[in-house]
Amino acid sequence: MEINSKLRTILEKIKENKPLVHHITNYVTVNDCANIVLALGGSPVMADDHKEVEEMVSIASALVLNIGTLNERTIESFILAGKKANQLGTPVILDPVGVGATSLRNQATERILKEVKLSVLRGNMSEIKCIYGIEAATRGVDSVDNPLEGGKDIALQLAKRLNCTVAITGAVDIISDGSRIFYIENGHPIMANITGTGCMSSSLVGVCCGVGEGSLFGAIAGIIIMGIAGEKAQQRLQGQEGLGSFRVYLMDAISQLTMADIEERGKAHELI
Amino acid sequence: MEINSKLRTILEKIKENKPLVHHITNYVTVNDCANIVLALGGSPVMADDHKEVEEMVSIASALVLNIGTLNERTIESFILAGKKANQLGTPVILDPVGVGATSLRNQATERILKEVKLSVLRGNMSEIKCIYGIEAATRGVDSVDNPLEGGKDIALQLAKRLNCTVAITGAVDIISDGSRIFYIENGHPIMANITGTGCMSSSLVGVCCGVGEGSLFGAIAGIIIMGIAGEKAQQRLQGQEGLGSFRVYLMDAISQLTMADIEERGKAHELI
Amino acid sequence: MEINSKLRTILEKIKENKPLVHHITNYVTVNDCANIVLALGGSPVMADDHKEVEEMVSIASALVLNIGTLNERTIESFILAGKKANQLGTPVILDPVGVGATSLRNQATERILKEVKLSVLRGNMSEIKCIYGIEAATRGVDSVDNPLEGGKDIALQLAKRLNCTVAITGAVDIISDGSRIFYIENGHPIMANITGTGCMSSSLVGVCCGVGEGSLFGAIAGIIIMGIAGEKAQQRLQGQEGLGSFRVYLMDAISQLTMADIEERGKAHELI
Repeated sequence: MEINSKLRTILEKIKENKPLVHHITNYVTVNDCANIVLALGGSPVMADDHKEVEEMVSIASALVLNIGTLNERTIESFILAGKKANQLGTPVILDPVGVGATSLRNQATERILKEVKLSVLRGNMSEIKCIYGIEAATRGVDSVDNPLEGGKDIALQLAKRLNCTVAITGAVDIISDGSRIFYIENGHPIMANITGTGCMSSSLVGVCCGVGEGSLFGAIAGIIIMGIAGEKAQQRLQGQEGLGSFRVYLMDAISQLTMADIEERGKAHELI
Repeated sequence: MEINSKLRTILEKIKENKPLVHHITNYVTVNDCANIVLALGGSPVMADDHKEVEEMVSIASALVLNIGTLNERTIESFILAGKKANQLGTPVILDPVGVGATSLRNQATERILKEVKLSVLRGNMSEIKCIYGIEAATRGVDSVDNPLEGGKDIALQLAKRLNCTVAITGAVDIISDGSRIFYIENGHPIMANITGTGCMSSSLVGVCCGVGEGSLFGAIAGIIIMGIAGEKAQQRLQGQEGLGSFRVYLMDAISQLTMADIEERGKAHELI
Repeated sequence: MEINSKLRTILEKIKENKPLVHHITNYVTVNDCANIVLALGGSPVMADDHKEVEEMVSIASALVLNIGTLNERTIESFILAGKKANQLGTPVILDPVGVGATSLRNQATERILKEVKLSVLRGNMSEIKCIYGIEAATRGVDSVDNPLEGGKDIALQLAKRLNCTVAITGAVDIISDGSRIFYIENGHPIMANITGTGCMSSSLVGVCCGVGEGSLFGAIAGIIIMGIAGEKAQQRLQGQEGLGSFRVYLMDAISQLTMADIEERGKAHELI
């Protein structure tokens, strides 16, 4: 009840406000991220030069930092934009893609966590475990772990430590703001077979956090929308249709998603 | 009559010559730009390092500069490539994405306009107003204005001042070379809901300007083709098909576009 | 018989091992490359900063170097990653996109060939001729030559000289490891009308070389899979479907490709 009421408000506000989401993101999935923001009713802008990110984030409703193809130049931009967003009270979402795989990613993530106050940290179990401090075998940008029982404690403790919402996405998504814990059981395994479903989830979280309803329900909203769209897209597949069609149907589903879909299909529940 | 005759010539020459269009462009929509150039029968090449842009533009039939994700490195390349194109008489198209949003974009645009002679400047109303000098609320890369009555004067005056063709795209497109003014009423509002329709229009203008029929009709051709393809793509949508399918159908429509489509659907007219 | 037996083994091992393929590649087709690696059952990772490429390639099963949008920064990364891969015995695939078009591309290619031992060099006839030393008119990244009779000698001799497998792709693909020569007659001309079919072929070769069955059959496997998928995708097209649909169907075909498709459609044969 609380969840659907919150999600309804978020969807309505997105329609009204068309929140501008500034991304400093990777060049692999950036087009998908821009399109999914538009499909949900937001407005994307991508800008990564250190000379303009502070100005750009100043006109944005949310900032998404994604380290998928980070480099020395963009790491500085992450910090500058993040600090500016903090000054302005603009929510910052971090997607620590592939953290654990290289020292550069670990150091960049540490620096962001130290210098920027996040609203939402969203990653797969490997990435979140790495940040939490548990040795996790990282396999590039793919998750090798499933959100097991331990996930809820990691999400809760890390959210407390970082004073933000932590979202671990996978077969089951776990979301905590440090006091409450939610599970989402939407989505389909095929989503892991195209690139960018994680990045796109973070972008949707950015849109949903950009309307002033807080980071916990912003994160829940973005992630449940992605999961439901994945289910709907998968169910449309037939015959010769494979991953190419799935990507198209996923974007179709986001652009046609309504509150009725969430009410009918949503499987989010609070862990008491 | 004059318009269709010119467009027919341009389409025929594209088929014959397969013009190579050198892009220095953003990483958000670059794949769409490459594919749309191919779909219309041109040949795209993307190269942005300052050490190679002069050589690359030397073998090209047109140069498209798009500042969507500019940085200090690529700004130098814009200038080098633009100057070389000027020396060779190769048409230069500028897409000043998001100008007005940050000082970096404003300064880069000013520098390009000062050091490079453009053939076509193509932007939305906010961007063109910003360059013209009217305070325009810029909202990232989305246009917040519609091409109102004032648009035709801005296009005409700016075209005179810059000595190039100015194209303002929106619900109605306005194109002027400083002496004549054309309106195009093709297209569909859904086009604003996917990323890259502006960038792709500029790329199509690049292809159409690369066959030696001048910048005014090159701009008209590229923009009317985009608008007609958008209409055809939108009309194919049914049932669960949304923005994912629309993007696919848009590329389908460009690749199947014929002179008959333009004769049947084209809504370009000169403002007497 | 030998070919199909080898390809069967390679496909089975891809399913078992999900090889991680590290790309340092261009930003035009990078999303297509990531998705095609996933569609075949591999796992892609893209990382190009000189501070992390050695670590990243250390956890990968293959390295794909693609110079499509090279710059000074990434050239250093090509070398660092390539040398590290050599130390570890990890196969390196080079896609010399547009070599011949600019001095920067020529110099970068020369440097890679001098400092890195390749497993596979894959390019179109213009690119391979350029590396071989024959003056070839290069037209950006498009091939202007067809693999003529001369192709087999170039492939054979260059493979001997570089001590690697050389694959020339085009209307007919020619693949040699310096002692044997294979022809592949799969594919369809429409494949040249979308961007990235060359890049995607190189990525598939990366996946197929990442399972320890050698570079000759790794190259044959990747290229024949791309050709067959192109044929199947083209055959699905009907009515208003053009290049947009073709791209979708191509990815569908890769994700649904089975050994039965290869047995039924494969046209690879050794040149005795």
